[in-house]
Amino acid sequence: MSTDSSNPFMAEAIALSLKNVREGSGGPFAAVIVKNGRIIARGVNRVTSTNDPTAHAEVVAIREACAALKSFQLTGCEIYSSCEPCPMCLAAIYWARPSKVFFGNSKEDAAAVGFDDSFIYKEIALAGERRKIPLVQLMRGEAMRAFEEWAKSPMKVEY
Amino acid sequence: MSTDSSNPFMAEAIALSLKNVREGSGGPFAAVIVKNGRIIARGVNRVTSTNDPTAHAEVVAIREACAALKSFQLTGCEIYSSCEPCPMCLAAIYWARPSKVFFGNSKEDAAAVGFDDSFIYKEIALAGERRKIPLVQLMRGEAMRAFEEWAKSPMKVEY
Repeated sequence: MSTDSSNPFMAEAIALSLKNVREGSGGPFAAVIVKNGRIIARGVNRVTSTNDPTAHAEVVAIREACAALKSFQLTGCEIYSSCEPCPMCLAAIYWARPSKVFFGNSKEDAAAVGFDDSFIYKEIALAGERRKIPLVQLMRGEAMRAFEEWAKSPMKVEY
Repeated sequence: MSTDSSNPFMAEAIALSLKNVREGSGGPFAAVIVKNGRIIARGVNRVTSTNDPTAHAEVVAIREACAALKSFQLTGCEIYSSCEPCPMCLAAIYWARPSKVFFGNSKEDAAAVGFDDSFIYKEIALAGERRKIPLVQLMRGEAMRAFEEWAKSPMKVEY
């Protein structure tokens, strides 16, 4: 499939991303989530307008879609994002488990207009001690108690 | 530093993770965010209780800390998480830009009690076409318009 094939859901995501730039309400990103041929959620980037660094288009749309479906899973859904998901959004997608993801711009395109997507992909692939933000392990013995209790808890809801 | 060194902020995160398991309100994870020696935000995993796959402890804590600071950046903050951040949370941390992260359990410990953290780390490192959730590029030409307008927008707030 050519990357220029027209698709109405991607066209909607792109239109929302343009609107977000023109209104000055966040970064140039939007996403829609589709189930059974119908849009069930829309999200636009709201990082700076809501002081929430996690308010990327895909995360906003996933939260809205899950609220609409009253489920923490997006089984049978497709996500159309105006840009290739950053690692945060890609991992959020894995936790939400939709069937498929479509994207418009690439992470390299995003890097070219000043976003850290490519940088973060590279950092995540590094061992902890080589990353720009240091990660240090502490108190594993104590922390394991919550995992031990979880493993045998009759109340747990797995996800 | 031994991974068993005691630390009051990690102890608080661990206590919250245990409480979350015992109350059946989500996965065995919690995080606290510290600025100038004071806890400014706490987060526990709320995925299943709020139908939000993005409601991991670190994301919840980051959102709360940013709301408290009225900023989309966590400059000068430290994050104490009861478990090594999953890729979603690690990338959220990169977007929030704290100084340092401490964690208790590792991603391998999380995998051993049934969580997908290690799996998602491996998937993110793969090329798109080799991933379990397919990612397909569409309509890049159209999508680029939002980036072009962003690049020259006088209203944009960079992040």
